[in-house]
Amino acid sequence: MTQLAQAFTPQVLREAPAELIEALAARFDERCSTATAIREQHGRDESAYVDAPLPQAVVFARSTEDIVDTVRLVAAHRVPLIAYGAGSSVEGHLLAVQGGISLDLSQMNQILAIHTEDMSVTVQPGVTRRQLEEALKSTGLFFPIDPGADASIGGMCATSASGTNAVRYGTMKENVLALQVVTAGGDVIRTGTRAKKSSAGYDLTHLMVGSEGTLGIISEITLRLHPVPESICAAVCSFDSIDQAVNVAIQVIQSGIAVARIELIDANTVRMVNVHSKLELPETPMLLMEFHGSELGVREQAQAVQEIAGEWGGQAFEWATSVEARRRLWTARHHAYFAAIQSQPGCRAISTDTCVPISRLAECLLESIAEVDATGLPYFLVGHVGDGNFHFGYLIDPDDPQQRALAESLNDRLVARAIRLAGTCTGEHGIGLHKQGYLVDQAGAGAVEMMRAIKRTLDPDNILNPGKIFSFDTPAREARP
Amino acid sequence: MTQLAQAFTPQVLREAPAELIEALAARFDERCSTATAIREQHGRDESAYVDAPLPQAVVFARSTEDIVDTVRLVAAHRVPLIAYGAGSSVEGHLLAVQGGISLDLSQMNQILAIHTEDMSVTVQPGVTRRQLEEALKSTGLFFPIDPGADASIGGMCATSASGTNAVRYGTMKENVLALQVVTAGGDVIRTGTRAKKSSAGYDLTHLMVGSEGTLGIISEITLRLHPVPESICAAVCSFDSIDQAVNVAIQVIQSGIAVARIELIDANTVRMVNVHSKLELPETPMLLMEFHGSELGVREQAQAVQEIAGEWGGQAFEWATSVEARRRLWTARHHAYFAAIQSQPGCRAISTDTCVPISRLAECLLESIAEVDATGLPYFLVGHVGDGNFHFGYLIDPDDPQQRALAESLNDRLVARAIRLAGTCTGEHGIGLHKQGYLVDQAGAGAVEMMRAIKRTLDPDNILNPGKIFSFDTPAREARP
Repeated sequence: MTQLAQAFTPQVLREAPAELIEALAARFDERCSTATAIREQHGRDESAYVDAPLPQAVVFARSTEDIVDTVRLVAAHRVPLIAYGAGSSVEGHLLAVQGGISLDLSQMNQILAIHTEDMSVTVQPGVTRRQLEEALKSTGLFFPIDPGADASIGGMCATSASGTNAVRYGTMKENVLALQVVTAGGDVIRTGTRAKKSSAGYDLTHLMVGSEGTLGIISEITLRLHPVPESICAAVCSFDSIDQAVNVAIQVIQSGIAVARIELIDANTVRMVNVHSKLELPETPMLLMEFHGSELGVREQAQAVQEIAGEWGGQAFEWATSVEARRRLWTARHHAYFAAIQSQPGCRAISTDTCVPISRLAECLLESIAEVDATGLPYFLVGHVGDGNFHFGYLIDPDDPQQRALAESLNDRLVARAIRLAGTCTGEHGIGLHKQGYLVDQAGAGAVEMMRAIKRTLDPDNILNPGKIFSFDTPAREARP
Repeated sequence: MTQLAQAFTPQVLREAPAELIEALAARFDERCSTATAIREQHGRDESAYVDAPLPQAVVFARSTEDIVDTVRLVAAHRVPLIAYGAGSSVEGHLLAVQGGISLDLSQMNQILAIHTEDMSVTVQPGVTRRQLEEALKSTGLFFPIDPGADASIGGMCATSASGTNAVRYGTMKENVLALQVVTAGGDVIRTGTRAKKSSAGYDLTHLMVGSEGTLGIISEITLRLHPVPESICAAVCSFDSIDQAVNVAIQVIQSGIAVARIELIDANTVRMVNVHSKLELPETPMLLMEFHGSELGVREQAQAVQEIAGEWGGQAFEWATSVEARRRLWTARHHAYFAAIQSQPGCRAISTDTCVPISRLAECLLESIAEVDATGLPYFLVGHVGDGNFHFGYLIDPDDPQQRALAESLNDRLVARAIRLAGTCTGEHGIGLHKQGYLVDQAGAGAVEMMRAIKRTLDPDNILNPGKIFSFDTPAREARP
């Protein structure tokens, strides 16, 4: 069964009565909008879905109290409420598939406290990744999680985001210390503490991280920070074949080298970047790396990696430590997505997100490349290969159902392969609308049933981002042979 | 309100009917025991509780199937089932406070698969920490979590254990990749995958880790492993005052030095160890440290720490890299607990476990030391100070209710202080019986209510380790002003 049919199955709409819209308008005044343009903006994300219903209204929250009041109002009418951060989700997470109200948190963008001496920061959910980066500039600390987009921190919690630095610093799971959450009942709870560790009761922080807005609205986040390393060294290396590049990445990880980033981009991507950014990079697979540590430490790491790369036929190994030179070396990675999108006017990228144990990475990647090459579908490939995570971006014409079906069937086979190799259908994007069948394949019906039981208990009227991750009340539909 | 009264409030017993005991005996033969000695052994842990009821029978499981069958049998009679690993819990976690059956998992001690190339291992829950250490010896990998006792891996999951290496390698939360769990309904589910990261649905792995056997019986565990560092350097340093030692630890952490261990022991402890182990260590507060990395890297770290220690008046800074010399330097830490217990014949240690943000550590520690010193109660103090976590061991005569009350009231004040300083009542021991009131103080009634809702959904008959973490059905009792 492909995901396609399931993903676009229309869901039953739960219309907000006029009474609710009026009550929201009375409470929020111009911060409640029913303008079509606003609703359209809040009814789309970076996924390839273009036909979901729009939210009926958008509320712009400025405080936890605003969230509480909104939750209580929608709860009274059993109408869906969908938290909206920066709109950069890629699996349809924020689509109003059952109608309802979009709760825009982007104006909750205060950095509440920087605890330099504890290496932590407390922020509102609408703070974006780059805003946080800017705010931390003079502290000697940084926050390492970097999904491609300038996502909101709340959204990054909701999808358990990661990115290029995760290989060394972990994902959101390892970097959220504490949360404030508004429950489906409109109560405000706190999870975790600012202490570095705790064994106090169930780990509600981790339950909320990755729950995609279905268990509560995250209203405050305390993040771990990390010291800016004394020295940073970037390196790139080209390879004749993707096989060689992947094997270098595997061996680097298996050698225990604490690489801070190790990214693969394929020859297609380099070609697109050359066109987009007017570069003249050799159009072969590349590894892009970064090393963090003392001056001596990063030199040791870079040398060890250069040796491994040499053994696998790596060419044109270049390294750099100044900010500017590092940025130049990483250009190809930074421009990959936009270069790819612009390579096919009007196209959209359907992004895959499998992640496998590092020992299975070569097998998973090479078989999947052969499969897509055989179809002729244009694509690019980038990978956080140190984590065993990679993304194909299948470039499709969104109006061409055949191309869409082809992309979906390639993804089906890729996911089945990743699961067979002890991996996951999603390393960092989340389940959203798109991967609900895959979740059952991966976790099993029993584990999904446990998730569903938790959802039903914490949100019995299914008001928080309904229709995402799994179906609320039709387990039978999901069971597979 | 002190914890004392609450902790020892007897709970309603839920007696196993003869029919159940017979059914268990029929299924498990000699692996089901009702012998008093066996029940006594399974009815006590390392806590100071000596008056809890014993389990009515003990079942020795050898397989997941054994667990499933036991769960189904006890569930049919709504009788409590308490998972038992190595018996080393310190908060009464495994006490049969409502009667029922103890499920001994120590014979499920197979190491199922070592995935050297992925740096992970899959084990049964009865495997102990030292057994795992031994099994990994030739792999070049190690598992860093080291609570004092030779705990079982299943038990370490259940309490979210940590120990001395957590400052660098994290706790069980950061090091469990995947679980197999038998639910209260007798179903077998899997959580997580062997891939390094995943955003696939609710994080059931983290929900189980730290749930103290109340949400499921952990029947299989996949752990992250870490490369044995190329070089290890141990160091010790003495200080005139504990104030100086703590400030060195704080500054080491704040400098971003990736210390692998940084432990404090107070002068009392050194004195006890000198007697116990016939040593002649200077009887002043000490820091014991370990550095992991390349040869150059550890030297850099040790030198940086020596400089900081020098600025705070540290004396007798010694370091060593050979296994034997390192062990010698760490003697005082390894023998601390037994040296303390033996310093007062017949005593038991009531261990505290607060953890605070590193910037609050000096305040929390120094105020608490002054408080206990003022009472004259004998104690020792050890601390994973790099994490802001420390343990007083109040040495009491277990038959002296006044001493017990004094220890409890000191702990009350300590916990209140830690919570006021944005910390937790338990960094690594868990809630068990002892800290249920503290949990409400720390997390708030709303968060505890969410935990309770999850428990009631996943274990509606309250068969899995009842009476631990929070009360199943009397939230009102827990609410505090």
